[in-house]
Amino acid sequence: MRTLHVELGERSYPIYIGSGLLERLGELSIARGINRNSTHLIVTDDKVAPHYLQQAEETLAAAGYSVISHIVPAGESSKSLQTFEEVMTTAIQGGLDRSSAVFALGGGVVGDLAGFVAATYMRGVTFVQIPTTILAHDSSVGGKVAVNHPLAKNMIGAFHQPVMVLYDVNTLLTLPPRDISAGLSEMVKHGLILDRDFAYWCRDHAADLLRLDPEALSYGLERGCAIKADVVSKDEREGGLRAILNLGHTIGHAIEAVGDYGRFLHGEAISIGMAGSAMLAEKLGRDKGIYEETVSMLKALNLPVTLPPDVSVDDIMAAMQHDKKFTEGRMVFIVPEAIGAVSIVKDVPVDAVRCVVEMLKGESV
Amino acid sequence: MRTLHVELGERSYPIYIGSGLLERLGELSIARGINRNSTHLIVTDDKVAPHYLQQAEETLAAAGYSVISHIVPAGESSKSLQTFEEVMTTAIQGGLDRSSAVFALGGGVVGDLAGFVAATYMRGVTFVQIPTTILAHDSSVGGKVAVNHPLAKNMIGAFHQPVMVLYDVNTLLTLPPRDISAGLSEMVKHGLILDRDFAYWCRDHAADLLRLDPEALSYGLERGCAIKADVVSKDEREGGLRAILNLGHTIGHAIEAVGDYGRFLHGEAISIGMAGSAMLAEKLGRDKGIYEETVSMLKALNLPVTLPPDVSVDDIMAAMQHDKKFTEGRMVFIVPEAIGAVSIVKDVPVDAVRCVVEMLKGESV
Ligand SMILES: NC(=O)c1ccc[n+]([C@@H]2O[C@H](COP(=O)([O-])OP(=O)(O)OC[C@H]3O[C@@H](n4cnc5c(N)ncnc54)[C@H](O)[C@@H]3O)[C@@H](O)[C@H]2O)c1
Ligand SMILES: NC(=O)c1ccc[n+]([C@@H]2O[C@H](COP(=O)([O-])OP(=O)(O)OC[C@H]3O[C@@H](n4cnc5c(N)ncnc54)[C@H](O)[C@@H]3O)[C@@H](O)[C@H]2O)c1
Ligand SMILES: [Zn+2]
Ligand SMILES: [Zn+2]
Repeated sequence: MRTLHVELGERSYPIYIGSGLLERLGELSIARGINRNSTHLIVTDDKVAPHYLQQAEETLAAAGYSVISHIVPAGESSKSLQTFEEVMTTAIQGGLDRSSAVFALGGGVVGDLAGFVAATYMRGVTFVQIPTTILAHDSSVGGKVAVNHPLAKNMIGAFHQPVMVLYDVNTLLTLPPRDISAGLSEMVKHGLILDRDFAYWCRDHAADLLRLDPEALSYGLERGCAIKADVVSKDEREGGLRAILNLGHTIGHAIEAVGDYGRFLHGEAISIGMAGSAMLAEKLGRDKGIYEETVSMLKALNLPVTLPPDVSVDDIMAAMQHDKKFTEGRMVFIVPEAIGAVSIVKDVPVDAVRCVVEMLKGESV
Repeated sequence: MRTLHVELGERSYPIYIGSGLLERLGELSIARGINRNSTHLIVTDDKVAPHYLQQAEETLAAAGYSVISHIVPAGESSKSLQTFEEVMTTAIQGGLDRSSAVFALGGGVVGDLAGFVAATYMRGVTFVQIPTTILAHDSSVGGKVAVNHPLAKNMIGAFHQPVMVLYDVNTLLTLPPRDISAGLSEMVKHGLILDRDFAYWCRDHAADLLRLDPEALSYGLERGCAIKADVVSKDEREGGLRAILNLGHTIGHAIEAVGDYGRFLHGEAISIGMAGSAMLAEKLGRDKGIYEETVSMLKALNLPVTLPPDVSVDDIMAAMQHDKKFTEGRMVFIVPEAIGAVSIVKDVPVDAVRCVVEMLKGESV
């Protein structure tokens, strides 16, 4: 088992990564001080539950915990206020109190939803993340939790740190291939923003990662989590630095919106967004070569780097304007300076971004 | 203008109390650093809006702010997830961003609802309280915000401190008499828990307070806010001490629930609850006289101190069990030790509480 620490003063917590950790959930919950007199709640989804819910319930019961479960439909649509209210109903009917914990067993959707429940049930209870996707190495660290509003993603949320993250890499073996690649997109992003060697390591071990080799996977998740944890420790509530985690996300979020949050997975959309950011970097005068190197990494991980021809540039630009304000034809953008280094540029011309989006479609400029 | 400070480290904020403060809202918002480049949102209700919304909008506009408003129906039923989502829709459509502020113009209902919006819109934006009820001298200080779940009150919420509380006592002139008394109930509670002289002052100035004499009212609100602020500074997230603010609330919440949150105002219910706590104190061996003195204060403020005959003792006990757990026939209770002093007693026999509820109905024991 590898252990990382997220340093956040009195809100610090450990991330445990390894094979077969799920069966140690009860024991580690005791170690983290979770109260054995209260009832606790596991939130999971209907694709994860058949594989892992019973084991999670049994290890907690064996450790003396009383637990109830709530299973939501798999998919982004469960990050809604309606599902949130349903989970709250289960929590109230189950008699959860101020000393209860909410366990998120699943990917980023379950983590964000259950985390928002934990942040707001009786004004906040204990939260545990048990990520079961690769993408969730990103979403389970940092304490951002949220549900979506019909008009915009992640609009309703909080910062609520878990008391531990328990990452059993064995649970990843049942992941569909598209979700594997999509999760690796955030992993290589962590290299691209802060760790050149790790970015190249991801490319060089792409085959191992894609076939879920436990050694490669554990190392990649540990390094990805460590980079994220480091940024979050320095800027818990996104005052400044934390924004670098959004590399590829400005264009990526627009792509997700235009695809109605179903056509592209989050990791796929930000892969295209990272390719776009690299193009933009070169356009703004950064080293030639950033784009080619970035794209070679993304492609090695079976990730898309271009927009399908039927996606409209106008729609992408409109969605982006909705997300970030364009002030006098300029916008804020995370721009690669090299592989492993980015900067926050506040006055990127919107025209340059538009030009990049056109290039992502393979249109001549 | 009287100014109080709530000391909470980097979350410290001022409470301004005085006549005619509403017209200074724009100026004070600038002083508190509220950003003039973002759009802001005023949340109010349909009984408060006709009196005060226009003035609030105008003073903000005159100070250079761009503001939109959302008016909810008056009453507890607006503290729902549905209304919450509607306010969120207005915020998104109005283009509020991370630097926006939410202004709560109204009583505790508007404050709790708008505060929960501010706590969760984009994971938290600036919050300003402009209380317009006497009760809100309590609810606007301390950062507890929440909406109700159909199964239980205040179940979904957060701790989110305002950046300022602006209390214009002139706005209280339009309050209905029942709401005046209900608000004074929390005021005298602040005396009963921590300040003997203030409790007697409330009784001796009951007539002035009931007719909203500006001097008496400003002093009473200042002292009430100061006591609350002091407790909150010492225990922001209700780890221990803060529980003393719940004097009368264990029985009071049960009374509200049994009256379907409509029959009794919150302040009325806790007045009956405080009478009950005083009875309980004597039953548990505290000084004779606590009950009589407490009741004289509550009656002076036109507050109820008994339960109507049709209320069922069983229903009250069931509602209480739902709120607080009874462990082995015992429960936690805030018990008066004298006028101006209380303690948190962890092992009050449920039977003694039942007996008190029977006495509150005037039944022989
Ligand atoms: N909070 C944050 O900081 C943060 C960061 C990045 C992304 N996110 C959010 O994360 C979400 C995306 O996360 P995700 O990609 O994990 O999505 P997800 O939770 O929807 O999981 C993807 C799919 O895989 C299934 N699945 C999960 N674990 C499985 C397993 N072990 N075996 C088989 N199937 C499994 C799920 O049922 C789902 O169908 C988005 O909502 C995004 O906004 C949040
Ligand atoms: N957050 C906290 O710490 C805290 C503490 C105590 C109570 N509360 C909450 O506060 C709520 C009760 O507060 P409240 O009594 O202020 O209720 P309220 O907001 O419903 O106001 C009472 C009534 O007076 C009307 N009103 C408000 N201001 C007026 C004015 N100036 N002139 C004329 N009419 C006016 C309102 O429209 C409403 O009909 C409850 O929901 C309770 O849970 C919260
Ligand atoms: Zn992401
Ligand atoms: Zn109260």
